Amino acid sequence: MEKKISDKVINRLTLYHCILSDYINKEIEFISSKQIAQLLNIDDSQVRKDINLLNNSGKNRVGYIVKELKISIEKTLGFKKKKKAFIIGTGNLGTAIANYGNFKDYGLNILALFDNDPMKVGKVINNMKIQEISKLPDLAKSEDVDIAILTVPAQFAQSTADFLVRANIKYIWNFAPVVLSVPSDVQVWNENLMGNFLQFTYDI
Amino acid sequence: MEKKISDKVINRLTLYHCILSDYINKEIEFISSKQIAQLLNIDDSQVRKDINLLNNSGKNRVGYIVKELKISIEKTLGFKKKKKAFIIGTGNLGTAIANYGNFKDYGLNILALFDNDPMKVGKVINNMKIQEISKLPDLAKSEDVDIAILTVPAQFAQSTADFLVRANIKYIWNFAPVVLSVPSDVQVWNENLMGNFLQFTYDI
Repeated sequence: MEKKISDKVINRLTLYHCILSDYINKEIEFISSKQIAQLLNIDDSQVRKDINLLNNSGKNRVGYIVKELKISIEKTLGFKKKKKAFIIGTGNLGTAIANYGNFKDYGLNILALFDNDPMKVGKVINNMKIQEISKLPDLAKSEDVDIAILTVPAQFAQSTADFLVRANIKYIWNFAPVVLSVPSDVQVWNENLMGNFLQFTYDI
Repeated sequence: MEKKISDKVINRLTLYHCILSDYINKEIEFISSKQIAQLLNIDDSQVRKDINLLNNSGKNRVGYIVKELKISIEKTLGFKKKKKAFIIGTGNLGTAIANYGNFKDYGLNILALFDNDPMKVGKVINNMKIQEISKLPDLAKSEDVDIAILTVPAQFAQSTADFLVRANIKYIWNFAPVVLSVPSDVQVWNENLMGNFLQFTYDI
């Protein structure tokens, strides 16, 4: 049976993965738990504990083998499992996410962008054409997409979420600073930027 | 002595605050822990526990008094404490954050935007003029700013962070998908979007 990995561990493993990609770019072969810990300002015993959760065998007295550790993280976190998603709202935030670049490496495949602004429909961002929002339900069905990245302005977030729910979207990654009301079979992840800022600067 | 509030609680309190603002807009006077819990798909005992951490007295048998609970959260999380920050990088992400709107309500005062692109310098976003990045150190000193919101492309993130450290910036809110190497007296908050996505969709 697979172990369930906690949210905090998933978050840290993604950051380790980021460091490992950088090491590979720099052609460095080994990395120690101490090096990872120092970059993230955490305890190296924590790093070792997290890595012990992986099926990672590539370790010797110099440290972990960078390439193998990277693959272990990818296997554990399911990077190979492709997940299809739509971006709803192509203002600055939606455009930024569409251009974020390395989402595909993590299994996130953004199939299409949607907007209700006729001036934007037809434009191309990162090789994806912006489509009229009314076309979403059919495309969600034909392409079997149930993840939506919601980047519309706050005042349109709830009505857009209602529309997505009717189109059978089951996962809403919400970037609008609004708590959405959705049926219990729909999952919402609130990208709570202000909460993060307040956490980060709480001690200032 | 003040209680130290955990990151998870701060994050939830910010979401409660978001719900309360919405209730105020709708002119609803009372809210129950159950209503909050349902919107966030969490347990209502958790909501009550969090609220018990606040100095909140506005409660009767109908529920919490929306306005008072909102003020209690603001006091506890220090919304009134103004924190000055810069945005570095005015691509789509930096522009989105500059326009995010309600940051000021949370005490985040973005004083200036910076870019190194001469085509962008001088343009105005949300009443803030984009300035040449070389002007940052002087302005950080004269305005006593030590928070930077880093929204440059990944390949420039480390060199920009080095520059910010030399300008005496002590808090870097990092949106680039890169783990930054900084001295130990500088705090970094990694806005780890891919980690969040992987957490959100882990069970799919």
